[in-house]
Amino acid sequence: MNPGATRYGIVVIGNEVLSGKVDDINSTFLMKELHALGGRVERVAIIADDADEIAETVKSFSRRFDVVLTSGGVGPTHDDLTFPSVARAFDRPMVFNSEMAAAIQGFFGEERAKVYLAMANLPEGIELIFTDGLLFPVTKLENVYVFPGDPAVLRKKFRAIRDRFAEAPFHLARVFTTLEEGDLAPLLRSLQDDIPHLEVGSYPVYDNPDYKVQITLESKDAQAVEEGRRRLLAALPPASIVSVEE
Amino acid sequence: MNPGATRYGIVVIGNEVLSGKVDDINSTFLMKELHALGGRVERVAIIADDADEIAETVKSFSRRFDVVLTSGGVGPTHDDLTFPSVARAFDRPMVFNSEMAAAIQGFFGEERAKVYLAMANLPEGIELIFTDGLLFPVTKLENVYVFPGDPAVLRKKFRAIRDRFAEAPFHLARVFTTLEEGDLAPLLRSLQDDIPHLEVGSYPVYDNPDYKVQITLESKDAQAVEEGRRRLLAALPPASIVSVEE
Repeated sequence: MNPGATRYGIVVIGNEVLSGKVDDINSTFLMKELHALGGRVERVAIIADDADEIAETVKSFSRRFDVVLTSGGVGPTHDDLTFPSVARAFDRPMVFNSEMAAAIQGFFGEERAKVYLAMANLPEGIELIFTDGLLFPVTKLENVYVFPGDPAVLRKKFRAIRDRFAEAPFHLARVFTTLEEGDLAPLLRSLQDDIPHLEVGSYPVYDNPDYKVQITLESKDAQAVEEGRRRLLAALPPASIVSVEE
Repeated sequence: MNPGATRYGIVVIGNEVLSGKVDDINSTFLMKELHALGGRVERVAIIADDADEIAETVKSFSRRFDVVLTSGGVGPTHDDLTFPSVARAFDRPMVFNSEMAAAIQGFFGEERAKVYLAMANLPEGIELIFTDGLLFPVTKLENVYVFPGDPAVLRKKFRAIRDRFAEAPFHLARVFTTLEEGDLAPLLRSLQDDIPHLEVGSYPVYDNPDYKVQITLESKDAQAVEEGRRRLLAALPPASIVSVEE
């Protein structure tokens, strides 16, 4: 569809999400950010705090996608299973990481750190990415970034390494029309079929007095978007076009 | 974990979600509703408008879980691939469904219905669930309910058949404490290990002046929750208990 985009998978880990106690706003944040950076999120999985589930999902996502981001299951309690499960996904042992131990001691102080030092057990070979303004490093094993589930901390950590994910951006045009999807379907299909690398989207709304469908034209190829926009506007009855946004 | 609960999988279908154009509020709604009804959502997948992806995901979810709910990809345009893909997942042909055709004609009127009649092509053997107050039926094939992506319509349809999903409820107790997760970890692990069918959750917050961790105790077995609550409150320093909610 859009050749050249990095293909991402996102894994959200947490019983609290699946049982509706906590809304998953992390995947929403990451999907928006990665798309804005020119990446292509191909799949999101929300899974339980279960070692087998996490290990299998991380393993299969790691093989299928260029880059994987996980959220949740990082901490000192019994339901924090992400690191040992990621280790299992890559057949790595868990080993004491002195760099992480030092970060924990620096944050909590030597005495208080004792109850958190188990968190310095990490998969062998994990990459710790220290950045300015962050007390704890971002963690990465193979092509998998492991983020904590707390939304504020996840955002801070993602933003600290955001530049790593930047690539050629998508171009987008949006056309709002009073026509219904049924009338638009043949035209949209021909645009989708005829114009290489163009992705045509169609989003009906039922409660808006101004328009009935939002049409999106998106591509890394600006000319494909421009051609789609031109052909679409030429084909629509002028009175049916409410607005065009780019 | 909680024996007896129906195991659910949810599949959200739509490029508009993965590219951050539309927030996924459907899975959040369904997770909350199903949990409140006594069900156990075990996995959510957000996937693209891609026939192979949809067919494979629906097939694997249908085998793994008792009941599957899908959202999105239902409509008259080129990116509406859910029905043919669900048909493929179950090796069914697509056939013209006269009941659905009648519903489409009833809603749009005979003339306007023409451009929507392709939507009457449905997997062979699909169950159409007509309910009071709904113009279009809820659709079900094998153990898979197919819902539209529009959040208002999805909610209306789910609520119309909500009673089908009701079973013995979960019991929940929540304890808010000023202790940190590091200090709580051994106690919470012993509760989780010792009390059958109890699920112990631990949710730290970093910006609340009143408490540091919310502990949740949940089970279909009310006595397990009560025993967990009693043991937890006996073990915590009284001054560290901010509040208990049930």
